[in-house]
Order: sequence, then C-alpha cells, then structure tokens
Amino acid sequence: MASSPPPATEQETATLPGIFLRHRSEINVALRDGLSSNHVGLYDMLRYYMGWVDTNGAPWTATEGKALRPTLCLLACEATGGSVRQSMPAAVALEFIHNFSLIHDDIQDRDETRHHRATLWAIWGVPKAMVAGNALRVVADTCLERLVDEGIEIDQALKVIGLLTEAYLEMIEGQFLDLSYEGRPDIGMDDYLEMISRKTGALIRCSVTMGAALGTRNEATLATLHKFGRSLGYAFQIRDDYLGVWGEEVTTGKPVGADIRRKKNSFPVVYTMSAASHRDREILRAIYRKEELSSKDVETVLDIMDRMNVSESANRLAADHCDAALEALNMAEIDPDIRREAEALVNFLVVRQH
Amino acid sequence: MASSPPPATEQETATLPGIFLRHRSEINVALRDGLSSNHVGLYDMLRYYMGWVDTNGAPWTATEGKALRPTLCLLACEATGGSVRQSMPAAVALEFIHNFSLIHDDIQDRDETRHHRATLWAIWGVPKAMVAGNALRVVADTCLERLVDEGIEIDQALKVIGLLTEAYLEMIEGQFLDLSYEGRPDIGMDDYLEMISRKTGALIRCSVTMGAALGTRNEATLATLHKFGRSLGYAFQIRDDYLGVWGEEVTTGKPVGADIRRKKNSFPVVYTMSAASHRDREILRAIYRKEELSSKDVETVLDIMDRMNVSESANRLAADHCDAALEALNMAEIDPDIRREAEALVNFLVVRQH
Repeated sequence: MASSPPPATEQETATLPGIFLRHRSEINVALRDGLSSNHVGLYDMLRYYMGWVDTNGAPWTATEGKALRPTLCLLACEATGGSVRQSMPAAVALEFIHNFSLIHDDIQDRDETRHHRATLWAIWGVPKAMVAGNALRVVADTCLERLVDEGIEIDQALKVIGLLTEAYLEMIEGQFLDLSYEGRPDIGMDDYLEMISRKTGALIRCSVTMGAALGTRNEATLATLHKFGRSLGYAFQIRDDYLGVWGEEVTTGKPVGADIRRKKNSFPVVYTMSAASHRDREILRAIYRKEELSSKDVETVLDIMDRMNVSESANRLAADHCDAALEALNMAEIDPDIRREAEALVNFLVVRQH
Repeated sequence: MASSPPPATEQETATLPGIFLRHRSEINVALRDGLSSNHVGLYDMLRYYMGWVDTNGAPWTATEGKALRPTLCLLACEATGGSVRQSMPAAVALEFIHNFSLIHDDIQDRDETRHHRATLWAIWGVPKAMVAGNALRVVADTCLERLVDEGIEIDQALKVIGLLTEAYLEMIEGQFLDLSYEGRPDIGMDDYLEMISRKTGALIRCSVTMGAALGTRNEATLATLHKFGRSLGYAFQIRDDYLGVWGEEVTTGKPVGADIRRKKNSFPVVYTMSAASHRDREILRAIYRKEELSSKDVETVLDIMDRMNVSESANRLAADHCDAALEALNMAEIDPDIRREAEALVNFLVVRQH
C-alpha cells in the first residue's frame, strides 16, 4: 500500500493544547459581534460560512475550527504584557481575513465543499460569493478601527493596521504565485518556500506580530517574535501539505492523496519532482501532463513518494522550522508561563491531524 | 426609431471642465508610483488594466479616464484649505478602489471588454483576475498609510481610513443588492435608489468627504460637503444609467440599449416597470422572463420607454440631484474660485456623453 500512517507518538501528542481553549468563548463572542449586521442576505452568507447558521439562516452548530490566528495574536499580546480585551479586535480581524481568503480560494479552486459543508459559490454562485468574501475583508478592517475605542494608543493602532495591510498584500502575492505555478513541473524548493512564506506564512507571522505590537514597543522583542512567527508559518504549511497527501479522511475531510489528484504544487510534489531519479521523474511528468489524474495515477505517485520517504522529509522540514520557532521563543523576553503555552502550541502544530 | 439622441445643448456643454485637467499629470504620476512594484506578473496585470501597458507588459497608451474620484477628493481638499500634495495618497487610493471594483464587476457580469479593451478575467482567467482585484484593493490601503508621511496628523489619517472603510463596505453591500435584484421584476424606485446610493454613491460621496476631512476639522463644513457628495452620487449614477440605454456607441463603447439587453435593473427599466400601463407591463414582464433578449425585444422596450418619455424623466431626476448638490455647495464655506470649479464639475456630470 502506498500511504504510511503517522507514527503512534504523533497521535498521542496531537491533543489540542490548552491555549486554544482559554480564550475560545471570548473569541466566539467577538466574532459573532463582528457579523451582527442584519443587512440583506449578505451577512447570512457569512454567518453560514462561519458555521453558525444553515443556508436558510437558522441556527446551526458546525464543528469548531482551531481559531489559530486569533489564538496566536492573543498569545503574543499576553506574552508581551498586553491586554486580551484590548487586542480582541485584532484577533477577530485576523480570523475574518483568513475566512475571506478561504471564500475566494474555494471559488478559484472550484472546491464545492470545505469542512464537510458546501462552499458559498457552490450554493449562491460565484458573483455573490465574491462579494461576500470582499465584505468579510472589510468587516475585518472595521474591527481594527475599534482598537482605539478599546484604549489602544492611536499610533499603535495605525502600526497594527499597517502590519495587517502588509501581510495581506503578501498573502495575495502568494496566492498569485501559487496560481502561476499551476501545471508547471519545474517549480523548485526555493519557489515553493517563497510561495508558502507569502500565501500562508504572512498571515500567521502577522498574527504574532500584531499581538506583540499591541503588548510592547520593545523593538528587540518584536523582532524576535517576528522570527518566531515566520518559522511557525513554514512549519504550519509544511504540515498542512503533509496532511493534504497523507492525512486521514476522517480528520481532514479529504481522501488520502487528495492534493496529488488536485495537482497542487505542495511540498510532497515539489520535493518528489526535484529529488526523484531520472526514470521516476519521467513517470511523474507523464502523469502530471494529464488533464485529470486517475486513482491509479495517484497510487503511482504515492508509491514513488513512499520509496523516497517523502513523508519523513516533510516531517523533518516541519520539525526544523518548529525548532527554529522554539529557539526564537527562547530568545524572547516574555512571561515564562506563556512561553510554555507557546511551546505546546508549536509542538502541536507539526503533529496535528487536521 | 426607438432611441432619442441627446439634445444639442447637452453636446455643447459636455466639454471636460478644467478641474479635471488641473491635477491630472500629478494624479497620473502618483497612480504609477502606487503600482511600481516589480513583483511577478501580478502588477503587470494591474498596469494593463490601468491602461499603461499591453498584455505583454510593453508600454501602451489607452484613452484616459476622467479620474473623477481623485479629482473630487483633491477639489474638496482645496475647497477646505487643504494641501493637494498631502491629499494625493487619498486621491490615488480612491481610484485604485474604484478599479478594484471594476475588475471584480467584470468577472461577475462576465463582461469581456471594458473601455474597448479585453478585461482581466477574459485574458488571464477568473482566479488570477480575482487575485489581481484583491491586490489593487490592498494597494489602495497602502497608499492611505502614506498620509502620515505626507504630514497629515495621525488622528486625521485614521479618520480618513475609517471613511474609506465605511464607504467601501457600503459599496459592497450595494453590489450585493444589485446582484440580489437580478431577474426580479418587482424592484421599485426606492429599492433602486437605496442600491445606487450604496453601490456607486458611497465611493463618490467618500471622495468628497475624504478630501474635505484632510482640509478641515469644521464639522458644519464637513456635513455640508457630505450632502454635496451624496447628491452628486445620485446624479452621477442616474446619468450613467441614462447613458447605458441611450448613450452613443462611439462615446460609451456600448451599443444603444446595451443595459436593456443585459437586463440591468437600472433607472430606465425600474422606472418603466413601475410607471408603465398594465398592458405595457405585461409585455415587459414577458420579455424580461426570457433567458436572453433579442434585438427585437430591446427595440420593443425602447419603444415603450420612448412613449413614456423615460429619458426625459431620467434627465429630470439627475437634474434634481444636481440642483441639490449645487445648493449644498452654496451653503458650504469654501473658497469661491473652487466653488465655481465644483459647480462646473456638477453641471458637466449630468450632461456628459460617457
């Protein structure tokens, strides 16, 4: 068989660390407040996407996400002596921006389901889904403006707005790179790392730096936490790419090999293409030239990856970035209790099952 | 024949007023500076859309637009004693936001050309065009952050950012309303006015209020110019809707009756539906129930509109809002020379041919 299950030790450590739960109910309340407008059907679409209502606007309970970005923001804020209450608008803005990008990604990738639910464009069509995504993006901006009402100094608020704008532009440039790579067999590891550092890394790094910028003006601490966020972004995405190929359907909602079938330029594919033998590379290129991959094709690619131990390489690279994140954390002058929570979060991210 | 040409007096007064030319070269320089990034192919797509390069990135000269929103912003800023140089980042941001919305509109309406050029999605596909639009939206935000570098007080900068966010959200809600109205024969004049005040009006009003907020802190002046901008937005869109049906192809780039064929819920259609005789309304409903309208259908609708003098009603309503704008202008304590320029601009907007 082609796919290797994750080692037992990973399974054991993949319990959601406490930091994800500590502020969860406050985050939920703030997210709902941010989308409380009654305006037309637009906000019902957004509330549906967030998992709070069904397609008719009636209450519904979807499986909750991790709220990674708000959690990182509040963690960084607490670590640097800031107030969770005051930083909540920034935390919530990050989650909205993240969901905005998912709504548009769903359209671009023609994905009809996400987290076991129909996507917006699949229900309401592309035009309305585009508009809904754009609206969520502005709702995020509106949240940030509330920082000043929460007592954040006006220059700090402006700095935080600037951090998000910068990260957001990077994210979009990363999405563009990703689209430009589609169907190209010559994407190298450098191209890949450049792309993920923007597409996913920018917003994760920004979650940390925004939280930190609300907690401290100490430039050295901010620079160290910037490094922490950067490494975390790589670790997160490489694990994500691992799960996109070897994740179990019951936890990820996608069948094994899903990202291979979708011809995504994710770590396993880029790595395999660049490190494969001449003969294997010819086989891979022939498969990737096809318009659509069959189950047999996916199996063949998985077999080559198994022979090359690609899943181990992915785990090793994620672990390296995890180590770099922990090292940066170790250098930062932050509250020791919070440091331990941050360490648990980092270690969790690279073994998580979804 | 169904369509009535605009009266000769309109043709004569439709020369572009001087205010559109006064800052044009500075606006052009600032727009190009805003898109000077060399990052991947993304910015070449945007430069193409702005009319500066061809699809291969080679220099190209497209017919220039009016740059209405930057012009309004700078005009309002000058009128209230502000500095053109300091307001330029806001002026440029407005033009970028406007173009962002056009890029996404083109996708939503499946329009393959605009201003006689192929649209982004028609050349590069929907996913990249969506991303390009999103990028332009962030470039606008980046511009606004430069206000502080230009010497604008930090609280004023934050206020101006807030004005744009608010208007932008209204614009998106208006786009959503417009999409929701599609195919509905029961849209009344109130629905229509509510929709255009958001979809187009918000950004035009915001162009005025942003400029004014950079020139003065006088609340009475700001409120008066807010009224001015609001009326101007209505006048502009109603004239736009007029041109969408009766505009000449040589100036608008669209054949007579274009918006009828597209089944747009624009002023002429909404007005005709609501004021038509029972018999005409039945004819109209039968036509609008069709998936696609034939040339004969368009002709029939134009005939009914001609009989009802709808073009005159459109002009009258635009003129009423034009008068309201002039009245607000008359109340505002602003430089008299600038007032005269603003009056010329208002009068031009409701007789323009494209």
